[in-house]
This record gives sequence, C-alpha cells and structure tokens, in this order.
Amino acid sequence: MHTTLDILKSHRSVRAYRDRPVPEDTLDAILEAAWRAPSSFNAQEISVVVVRDPERRTRISQIAGNQPWIAQAPVFIAVVIDYHKTGLGVVKAGREQQIQGSVDGLLMGAIDAGIVLEALMVAAHAEGLGIVPIGGIRRDPQAMIDLLGLPRLTFPVVGLCMGYPAQEPIQKPRMEISAFRHDEVYDASALPSAIDAYDIEIVEHWRRTDRSNGLAWSEAIANYLGVPDTRPVAEVLRQQGFDVTWDG
Amino acid sequence: MHTTLDILKSHRSVRAYRDRPVPEDTLDAILEAAWRAPSSFNAQEISVVVVRDPERRTRISQIAGNQPWIAQAPVFIAVVIDYHKTGLGVVKAGREQQIQGSVDGLLMGAIDAGIVLEALMVAAHAEGLGIVPIGGIRRDPQAMIDLLGLPRLTFPVVGLCMGYPAQEPIQKPRMEISAFRHDEVYDASALPSAIDAYDIEIVEHWRRTDRSNGLAWSEAIANYLGVPDTRPVAEVLRQQGFDVTWDG
Repeated sequence: MHTTLDILKSHRSVRAYRDRPVPEDTLDAILEAAWRAPSSFNAQEISVVVVRDPERRTRISQIAGNQPWIAQAPVFIAVVIDYHKTGLGVVKAGREQQIQGSVDGLLMGAIDAGIVLEALMVAAHAEGLGIVPIGGIRRDPQAMIDLLGLPRLTFPVVGLCMGYPAQEPIQKPRMEISAFRHDEVYDASALPSAIDAYDIEIVEHWRRTDRSNGLAWSEAIANYLGVPDTRPVAEVLRQQGFDVTWDG
Repeated sequence: MHTTLDILKSHRSVRAYRDRPVPEDTLDAILEAAWRAPSSFNAQEISVVVVRDPERRTRISQIAGNQPWIAQAPVFIAVVIDYHKTGLGVVKAGREQQIQGSVDGLLMGAIDAGIVLEALMVAAHAEGLGIVPIGGIRRDPQAMIDLLGLPRLTFPVVGLCMGYPAQEPIQKPRMEISAFRHDEVYDASALPSAIDAYDIEIVEHWRRTDRSNGLAWSEAIANYLGVPDTRPVAEVLRQQGFDVTWDG
C-alpha cells in the first residue's frame, strides 16, 4: 500500500482506460471522501454530477473539445458551483442571496471546487484508479448545463475522468520547486533560470515519452495563455444568474 | 497509520495549536506533495508563500479579520494565483500574455489554487498536523500583497494554518450526501428536506460541542451569502493587472 504522501507525490494524468467498470462501493467511497472536504463558511456550495451513461460521456467528450478519454473512461464527474443549494438556505433564513453577484463569490466557488476535485483525485488514486481533470467543459458551459439539467445559480467549472488505467504514464517533471515555494516573501529572482531549465527538461521528457512534437513549457502555455480567450464563460455565468458587478 | 480515504473522510479544522514547531523535513515533504498537484494546461500558475515569522503571522491574523489561530499556528501558507510566473514564459515565447484579462483565467487560477490547498491539507493530515483553511485573507488582499511582496499579475486567494493540534474537534456533520452527489442529472427535489434536516442536525452538533450560540446552517450562511459583499477583491485584482472584461 502506498502512503498518502506517495500518492500525492506520484500524481499523473491517465488518458487511456481499461474496459472495466468502477464498482459501486469504490465510487461511493471516493465520493464520500470528497463530500467531507471543507468549504468556505461551511456553505457546502459544491455539488457533483456523476455521469456513467456512455452517450452522455460521448457528448461531454465533444463539448470538451474532442477528448476521447472522456468517452472511454467509465466515470465522469462534473464539479459544480452550486449557489442554488445555498440560495434555498438563505431564503429559508428570510434573506435574499447576494453571493452570486460578487467576484469574491466566484473565487470562493472555484477554490472550493478545486478542493473537491483534488479530494476526488486523491481518493481515486488511493483506490487504484487513474484520473485526468478536465477544464475543457468550460469551452461550452451551456451545453454542460443543458446535458446535466443544472438549475439557475449553478455553474459546471471542472470535470474529472476516472477509471482503471490502460497506461502507466511517466510523471511529467515540474518546474523546480523554487518557482513554486517562497519563504516569508515572494522571490522572483530565480524564475527566469527555472523557466529556462524547465523548457529544456520538458522537451527531453516529451522525447523520452515518444511525443517528439511536444513543446517547451513557454511555447506550450503561450498557446493557451497568450491568445484571446474565446470561452463563453462570462456570458453563461450571467445567464445562470451570476450577475457579477466587476466594478465593486 | 490511517489510510488515505480515512484521512480524507476525517477532515476537520483545528483552531488551537501546540507551541511546537513543524520540523523542516515535514514541511518540505508537505510542500513537495502539493508541488506535484496538477494544473490547467500544466501552466503551474500557483505559487505558495510559507510564513513562519511570528510578527508576519500576527499581521495576517489581523488582515483575516482577527483570527488568533493564524498568530498561534507555527506555519501559515498563502496560496497565490501566479500569472507573473507564466507571463515570463509567454513573453519568452514571443507572445503577450492575455489570460489575466479573462473570467476563465480567474476561474482556472482559483480552481488550481483549491487543488494545491487540498493537497497541502491532505499532506498535513497525513503528517499528523492540524490545519484550518483561511479565506479571510481576501478581506484585505492589498495588505497581503504588501506583506508578502507579491508582484503584479499575482493574487493571494486563500491561506492555510498548520501546526500540531491542541484540540481534537468533533467532526462537523455534512448535509446529507444526496445534496452533494447527483447521478446523470442534477436532482433538486431532495434539497429542501436535506436542508431542514441539516439545520436541526448542526444545531445539535453545536450544543454537543458547547457552542450553544451556534446557528442553523441556513441562518449561518445567510450572514455571509445574503449580505452585500464588501471585500475589495475586484479592485485589488484590477490593480494587480487582472484587467478582466466581464462582458466577454
């Protein structure tokens, strides 16, 4: 058995799955573990939708920009910011809910979604399953909302494929830890050399794993973070009732 | 030794810490575990600042709205969305970074911050430490930025106290799992009764733990989610260069 730290340190994403279902009790245990994760103000404003239906998973694989592992993995879990649930409580207490109109509420929901996502990933790893997190559902959040029947004041922020792995990927190297960990104050001085070293290291990693067209980190992220964002996230958030006033 | 699922399922927050430092190698192992967590597009856009200096922790306890456990716990870790780091890579690749101007970029950073936060919490639990996550640093993010010397294009979204527990809190009950887990499609029908049952259960929990002034869930969240948001999050994000266009 692997220790918890071993599990955390050996994280890798799996994009090929065996044709073997995840037993009900295994899935229940994973979901129960994530259900116990903390939330801001104990709001419990995260919900998940477990999708096993093959047609629905095929549709999600298209929504996420043609990611075939979503159709292949037996389980997909959508992680949802759920201010519908909390709104019922706020109204019960005689107030009108306002969190959906604030940038802080958006951050709070997304952070807590990340907490639940990581709890699901760690629990799945502990059960011998492979996973890959899927941010691509935000390419077409309205399609996810329609598919999962999500009510107003909810938003599907991220998803997760889960199943028995059909591959044992080599772990992708990380940029040196000095680029992640700072002590007492942020120290930017080591970043340029860390990035240069990592650009070389990850190209070597791609070569070693037969993906010789793999890009250096700088070039790869430039393709995502250095282009105009075309995802209709703000529009769909607004349609769902997140009437965020960015001007405070 | 506890299994990973036990650790996840027994999550609780600790708000009283022993006067005992966290050994360097323990802290290193916890940070190394969180460093290996996945990030969107492998952007590695999360950084952490480890704060052990007592004066600095006292200042953070004030920033977070007078939370004395921040001054008491030997370690505080600030989790930071770091588009400064990624920006260096994007510029190196000859592009101009744009992610800081999109709502999707904000969600991505906050989700990945939540992933790192949960990895830190799980690793700390595995090492026998207590923790409590701190969203209250967003009450005055500019003060955190000044204190930690955070550069433009970064934002401190959440923090974590860590140390050896001086209390063994009873785990807070969760709303029944049907309010968290949905299968195939979202089913809102069970929520009202789940909320009613939970409001009763948590008041009993407060009574059992000698916090007889504890509120029902509905009333408690109404005090946070049913009031105007006064945190200057949007303003400080903008000052940090997150020129988000909410109108898409």
